[in-house]
Amino acid sequence: MTSQTARASIGVTGLAVMGRNLARNLARHGHTVALHNRTEQRTRDLVEQFGSEGDFVPTYSAEEFVRALERPRKLVIMVKAGAPTDAVIDEFAPLLEPGDIVIDAGNAHFADTRRREAALRERGLHFVGTGVSGGEEGALHGPSIMPGGSAESYESLGPLLEDISAKVDGAPCCTHVGPDGAGHFVKMVHNGIEYSDMQLIAESFDLLRGALGLEPAQIAETFRTWNTGRLDSYLIEITAEVLAHTDPHTGKPFVDIVADEAEQKGTGRWTVQNGLELGVPITGIAEATFARSLSGHAGLRQAARGLAGPDRGSAARQGVPESFADDVEQALYASKVVAYAQGFHQIQAGSAEFGWNIDLASVAAIWRGGCIIRATFLDDIRAAYRAEPTLPTLLTSGGFRKAVEDAQDAWRSVVATAVRLGIPTPGFSTALAYYDGLRADRLPASLIQGQRDYFGAHTYRRVDREGSFHTTWATDPRVEHEA
Amino acid sequence: MTSQTARASIGVTGLAVMGRNLARNLARHGHTVALHNRTEQRTRDLVEQFGSEGDFVPTYSAEEFVRALERPRKLVIMVKAGAPTDAVIDEFAPLLEPGDIVIDAGNAHFADTRRREAALRERGLHFVGTGVSGGEEGALHGPSIMPGGSAESYESLGPLLEDISAKVDGAPCCTHVGPDGAGHFVKMVHNGIEYSDMQLIAESFDLLRGALGLEPAQIAETFRTWNTGRLDSYLIEITAEVLAHTDPHTGKPFVDIVADEAEQKGTGRWTVQNGLELGVPITGIAEATFARSLSGHAGLRQAARGLAGPDRGSAARQGVPESFADDVEQALYASKVVAYAQGFHQIQAGSAEFGWNIDLASVAAIWRGGCIIRATFLDDIRAAYRAEPTLPTLLTSGGFRKAVEDAQDAWRSVVATAVRLGIPTPGFSTALAYYDGLRADRLPASLIQGQRDYFGAHTYRRVDREGSFHTTWATDPRVEHEA
Repeated sequence: MTSQTARASIGVTGLAVMGRNLARNLARHGHTVALHNRTEQRTRDLVEQFGSEGDFVPTYSAEEFVRALERPRKLVIMVKAGAPTDAVIDEFAPLLEPGDIVIDAGNAHFADTRRREAALRERGLHFVGTGVSGGEEGALHGPSIMPGGSAESYESLGPLLEDISAKVDGAPCCTHVGPDGAGHFVKMVHNGIEYSDMQLIAESFDLLRGALGLEPAQIAETFRTWNTGRLDSYLIEITAEVLAHTDPHTGKPFVDIVADEAEQKGTGRWTVQNGLELGVPITGIAEATFARSLSGHAGLRQAARGLAGPDRGSAARQGVPESFADDVEQALYASKVVAYAQGFHQIQAGSAEFGWNIDLASVAAIWRGGCIIRATFLDDIRAAYRAEPTLPTLLTSGGFRKAVEDAQDAWRSVVATAVRLGIPTPGFSTALAYYDGLRADRLPASLIQGQRDYFGAHTYRRVDREGSFHTTWATDPRVEHEA
Repeated sequence: MTSQTARASIGVTGLAVMGRNLARNLARHGHTVALHNRTEQRTRDLVEQFGSEGDFVPTYSAEEFVRALERPRKLVIMVKAGAPTDAVIDEFAPLLEPGDIVIDAGNAHFADTRRREAALRERGLHFVGTGVSGGEEGALHGPSIMPGGSAESYESLGPLLEDISAKVDGAPCCTHVGPDGAGHFVKMVHNGIEYSDMQLIAESFDLLRGALGLEPAQIAETFRTWNTGRLDSYLIEITAEVLAHTDPHTGKPFVDIVADEAEQKGTGRWTVQNGLELGVPITGIAEATFARSLSGHAGLRQAARGLAGPDRGSAARQGVPESFADDVEQALYASKVVAYAQGFHQIQAGSAEFGWNIDLASVAAIWRGGCIIRATFLDDIRAAYRAEPTLPTLLTSGGFRKAVEDAQDAWRSVVATAVRLGIPTPGFSTALAYYDGLRADRLPASLIQGQRDYFGAHTYRRVDREGSFHTTWATDPRVEHEA
């Protein structure tokens, strides 16, 4: 059925900015790219504006698009997650032949990807749900790419994706993450970690301002300095730029004219919901997600604005240690280690749950470039999992362990200062509570088990004998039954 | 179709301990109760052991059970949530007639209840998903009952449920919560608050022990004292009993021989997942749920056990304020107010989302007795919502506002001490961060919006003008576009 018009090595349908930039990236790398969009104008515009960048094959119907593709066909779908994605799959699947590869590069929930992969597999088609991180700029200049789907599909698709991905030390920021929904799962956790990271940075800014009385431009300088050290990362870099920016209309610091109500598109929520499902404590992502929700409840915040808080004036600030800015750097680093430890724990648990066999070192490796959370830090995470692939938690890995242990005095001091001055630090606080909970010899969970046995006969286990036990609290607590 | 054998005013199918105790409670109140169970033996056992308590009509088939019930029939289903509940509904629905009432008294997810209610409504049947709290003892002696479903069904069913419910000052702990899934929704949030409350109590115990070096029996006394004041509640009461209990086998404090791995049956998880869905920050419930998960990761905890923490010896404990035990009481009270404020916010949001028109004062009222979280405290919550039904948050209601504002110095001191000594207090910490976040003039969410606009062109709003804006960060940040 391959006709002489089948000359494109890959096609992109859905040419809004992300799809357009992926198509341009592919063409710039010498690949012939078939183009398709529901409304024809977008296709025409792309060729008109960027046609000189490479070899594009504009098409104006589903049939024409499919005919333009070399076998095995590779169709990248870049449309809205949910029903629009299903609609496009339903439109194209009947036109494809066994062995063809449908790539969903949108932000799908991994459970949808699993469902779609299973359905297309029955028809002999490969379905590759792939995470793409890096925003519009990343899509054009080199994103981090997290493809799932079959290993077989990666053989022919992988080289193209690696070609257009970001590179770090020459290595592509793209790897076959694992089967079916593994790619979108890892992208989900990536976004959850991103929420956590952004929240911690926001708290650092709030602390430096509230406890030291610094101006945003001064704090931008602090972040610039941090960005030359172990915190070197894209998010710290752009934070410095945002904080240094002056609003052209008012001459005020940009962050002071922006409404302080953070929005979200739902991937943080998905990550936390999945963490609850898997029983993995990802408290940093949860607090970050809820902090955004809280900020958005304008009416509630208005009603609560008069609630009393501690004095934060110059007298109160006298008590802030001189080392405070350095302490915040240490607290930020330690909390960030916790955020990543929780995220990687979630990937580990998801991989076990769904039988994905995800290589955590490779995940860390492909996040080093292209994506929003890219950071030199990820090189250390890669090394940690390379050295010990089944590491129970990043916190016990040599370098991280030492860094966090060394940072803890400062970390504790920062949280104590925040609490004293009434500066909300849900991210720093939960990270520290996680650290202290994880390393605790004994947790008061034993009391909770006792309560549960008391009111609900839920039974408990003992430290000194196997089995489940129930105490007859109401009648005679001296009596313990094996349950 | 009503035959002369139809003499039971209500029936219970599913006679495990909860169903058996509900049936006995009904019979003890003078109602004739039809009995049914999948295996006949349980039915026979109930009549044999407890037949003298009232008027039971044992039946041994679905048809016989249905025939035994007066119209409109009232069948209480008390089986496992999920597929077993659907199976029982499918078995009985075809035998019923329009106007009959099917009551699911199990712990169903409210979304399942909504689905079932809609399906049975189409067949002219009432479906009442009802929360029942109080455990086995409550079911027998008077639980808190939270029925949803139609107002019409409550006319004939309500009096029976009110009859067997707990009473506070003569008022039944049962009210028609709202349509379809409202009852199970409110029960879900009840359980979420219960998680939060238990976690806060557990942290209080851990703090008193870790910071003051007290023994469980001494701490039991502290809880007993607290139970005579504003913290007076069932959970504090049983905490004192659990802590005072000595293990009969070893002579050690009971809490020291119980495995410190808290278990859960999933309603905490549901609550948090729903909070994320509704965008309501219920951080206390999230931290409590994750704290249980963390405690259960035995292997991970084992691996992390050697991580360094601060000294907690007698020298370090010198720095603990003399008022510490009182401070913990204040911190516990303030954190508890936050937990309930978050839970009631969730009910408010769920009620708005699903059009349930839930009366928050009535919810507080029926939680005053019978259920696990019963507390004198709930009387104050009832009064607060009675005075102002659309109160944006409990934290701004007169009495609570004053109590929390008065408690905050102690609250901050307790969290700072916990952080200094390395005692994990995720519950106390998140409650305080919520308080400080809610009352903040400005949150660093503005920086997050700036970051999002920078890397993803997600736009931001301004404090001084309507509209959505985007700054062209990469090319010329002086240029701002209306988006």
